[in-house]
Order: sequence, then C-alpha cells, then structure tokens
Amino acid sequence: MSVPVRDVERYHTAALEMADEARRIIRPALERGFNVTIKADASVVTDVDHAVERRLREMIAGWFPDHGVIGEEYPPTRPDSPWQWILDPIDGTEEFVHGVPTWGAILALHHRGEPIVGVIDHPALDIRVNAGRGLGTHRNGVRVHLTDTPAATPPQKIRLVLSARLNFARHIDEGHLFDALTRQFPNHRIFRAAYAHTATATGAVDAMVDMHNQVWDLAASRVLIEEAGGRYVLVRDFPGTDGARRLSAVWGKPGPVERLLAVFAQHPLPAS
Amino acid sequence: MSVPVRDVERYHTAALEMADEARRIIRPALERGFNVTIKADASVVTDVDHAVERRLREMIAGWFPDHGVIGEEYPPTRPDSPWQWILDPIDGTEEFVHGVPTWGAILALHHRGEPIVGVIDHPALDIRVNAGRGLGTHRNGVRVHLTDTPAATPPQKIRLVLSARLNFARHIDEGHLFDALTRQFPNHRIFRAAYAHTATATGAVDAMVDMHNQVWDLAASRVLIEEAGGRYVLVRDFPGTDGARRLSAVWGKPGPVERLLAVFAQHPLPAS
Repeated sequence: MSVPVRDVERYHTAALEMADEARRIIRPALERGFNVTIKADASVVTDVDHAVERRLREMIAGWFPDHGVIGEEYPPTRPDSPWQWILDPIDGTEEFVHGVPTWGAILALHHRGEPIVGVIDHPALDIRVNAGRGLGTHRNGVRVHLTDTPAATPPQKIRLVLSARLNFARHIDEGHLFDALTRQFPNHRIFRAAYAHTATATGAVDAMVDMHNQVWDLAASRVLIEEAGGRYVLVRDFPGTDGARRLSAVWGKPGPVERLLAVFAQHPLPAS
Repeated sequence: MSVPVRDVERYHTAALEMADEARRIIRPALERGFNVTIKADASVVTDVDHAVERRLREMIAGWFPDHGVIGEEYPPTRPDSPWQWILDPIDGTEEFVHGVPTWGAILALHHRGEPIVGVIDHPALDIRVNAGRGLGTHRNGVRVHLTDTPAATPPQKIRLVLSARLNFARHIDEGHLFDALTRQFPNHRIFRAAYAHTATATGAVDAMVDMHNQVWDLAASRVLIEEAGGRYVLVRDFPGTDGARRLSAVWGKPGPVERLLAVFAQHPLPAS
C-alpha cells in the first residue's frame, strides 16, 4: 500500500519547515550558550535538544493530530498510528557541546515502518539533505545521484565512514568487527554525529557502517540513500541492555555496501 | 636565541594575511569547480592547491626575500635560511575533492626548526585558529585556554582524534598501534584532514595522534597547541619509502597526552 505522491510532497514540505524551525531555535542558542545535563545512560543532553523537540512535537500535533511521534528526549505519543514522526533534534550532542560542527537534526516520517520522508539538517555546516519517497534526494536544493565505485576499486580507495569502536562494543561486544572493518578498509572516517549519514547520502564518502544505535539515529537514512540511488541494509536488530531496540545498518553505493556485507558475513552476531 | 615579540607579531600578521588571500582564491574555486590530478604517490591534487601555494610563495618572496619556503606542491626555496615558511595550501585534498568540509590551509613559520607562527584556516567551516610564540592561540579571534581533563576521567570519556589505519600502516606498518589505541580509547574520531588539528588546539577534543605524515602536515600544530596550554610530543621521525621525512606526534591536553604516550611506550617502533 503505497503513499500517494501528493501526500509525500505535503509531508516532505512539512519536514522542511520543521528543519527551518529547528535552525531558528538552535542558531541563537549557539551564540547565547546552553545548559548541559548528563542523562541516566551517561550521555549528554542540552536544553536546546529539549526546546527543539518540544517545538517540533507542537508543529506535528497542530498539522497532523493523528500522527505519532517518537523522539529521543520525550515519551512516544500515539504509538498505534500507522504514521510515525521520528525525531533526533541534535544527533551528535556530545559534538555539539564541544563545538565540533558535525552534529545535525534528524527528522523522518515512517508509514507502517516504511520511511517516507527523511531530512538531516546541519546548521553549523549550512548543509541540508532531504528526501521523499519518489521525490529524490537533494543536498541544499540540488538533486543527488550516487555513482557506484568501479568493481576493481582497491579496498584502500573505498572511502568508508563508520561508528567509533565504543558503538561496536556497547550492548553486545562486536569490537572484533570494528577491527576487521578498519583493517580491510583502512581509508575510513569516524564522525560520531549525523554528518556521517549526510556524507554517505551525498556521495562524499562511498559507504557507512552504523552500529548499535537507536531508531531515531537511523530513521532518515534509508530514504535518503535509496532515493539517491544507493542501497541500505539493516544488519542488526536486537534489544539493548536497557530493553530499547538497537539497530545497525550498512548503506551507501551498491558496490562498497556489498563488500562491507561480506565482512559482516564473516562475523555473525555473537550470542548475547 | 629567542625571536623578539615584535618580530613574532609581524610574522603572525603576515601569516593571517596569507590565510585571507588563500580564502580569496579557494572560495570562488569552490563555486566554479576545479581540476583534479592524481600525483605520483597516488594522492590527489587540484589546480586550487597549486594556485594557492604559488600565490603564498609570491607574497613571502615579496615580504621576506631571505626566508625559505617548504610546500607540498613545489620544490623548497632557500633551504639554508634559518627562517622557513611551511605551507600545505589544502590539507585534506581528498576530502576537499569529495566535498567533506574538514580540509584546511596550514601555514607555519619555523626559526631554526622551532615553530614561531602557526595558522590553520577552514574556509568551508568558517573556522580559523592562529598562534604566535608568546601571543597565545586564538579561534576566530577569541583566546583559547585548554583545561586539562581530570586524572580520573575513564578512557571511554577521553575524546580522541586520530589518523586512519591507512596512515599508521604506511612506510612502516604500525597498524597494531591503531588497534591498541582504538581499543583503549574507544571514544575516537577520524577526520583525515586539518580539522583534526584544529579540534585539538581549541579543546573540542582532548588529544590527537597523528601518524606518518610529512613536515607540512604538522608544521603549525605544535605552536597552536603549546600556546593554548597543551602539550606536543614528537613520537616518530623516520624517512618514508620515498626518502622524505615522516613525522608522528601526539598532542592535546596534558593528561590525555600522557596516557596516550603510555600506549606508545608499549609499542615501540618496529625495525623498518
């Protein structure tokens, strides 16, 4: 049951307005400063994360009162709705707090679990990527078409981005997979923030391995990659030590994704 | 024999004017596009790298005709002068070519091998760090003072930035050191470009491990770190497979640097 393109366009436009509004809240906070709190899981959060998520939830409630919302900082609303907005107002809060500009807002709309709209917005980099199912992927308004790497590309020429070893080792220890990937694909970057996704969706890197993250970290990436002509494969889906779902995925240009999946095939998920 | 502060100020001002001029050449090229060539060592270079280095060499020749220049793209001039300008017009050219904004211009002045002035300028991030010996380190005009991390900081809270495994394994294979560092300090970033240095000099990360690089990659970092109150330690200095000097260094906040040096002590340089 596919979503009519007119509806996709309407939700896509709404998501862009939400990203604009997030920038309007975040930019003055960058000038003015913000409060940082340590969460129960030892990660950091700021009052800016909270202010953006509250405001986006208000906008969604006003425009689409029957839609659900899943966000990093507040409890889910309308979890039974087929339409779910999934929000991470500042993905890479640790980088945001320390002034590393790779953080970004991640906004997505899923319909019965299928991603329909995805936006990642980087106020500090002035980069935005956005996609709607059937509408293509755009970077700052320019359509993106990924070109696959030639099959003969040597591994050290594959431009990989991946999660830090901290991510690979949390919940279930897959540090050995980090070691294997970094050995086999030594031309790698680690950003620890949303820019990793953006770099892949725009072809600035060839592929991404994202490990042991929550649903809001990955919610926009599949539609962004697929609408750009790339491939997205969910490789892990298990409950974390806190009971929340943890997802891992490989995405990017089809050839490099295939080669990365071969490394995963050699390292199946250990028993938890 | 220290350099009078009035001279440091003059050279520091000259370096800032050179960084301004580099931006004036780079920014229109970003809009217009540029030509990419593969060098003999299989790395990439653009006509922008060449245009910036030529222009900076002209400025140095006009202002300081008795000073030498060492740059990535052209042969050294006046190698016997006690004063050497060391230039990497676009550090992170591979990232520049692919649109990842972490590249930057690195400019330094050394006097009898001692760094006197250092500038790293990031046109795509609108970030500049600059330092002169005795003048302090500034980020976009604001003085930087690094605060050391508490001694009890757990390893997973140390914000490390390091070179990719490709760098560790080239010339002499120290891939095992990459593996040891990423295991012991799992909260790491890899930028493959000058922003790694800038992040450390501004305290956005705690420490940096930079492996098997050329003199121009590291030329600005020591003065930038030391004038911000941090520590810089050269840990490797050997000729590469091409005969050119390859340097490795650890720098950042004093506590994390000490802890990283302990890992190096466990992994001495293998015989080449």
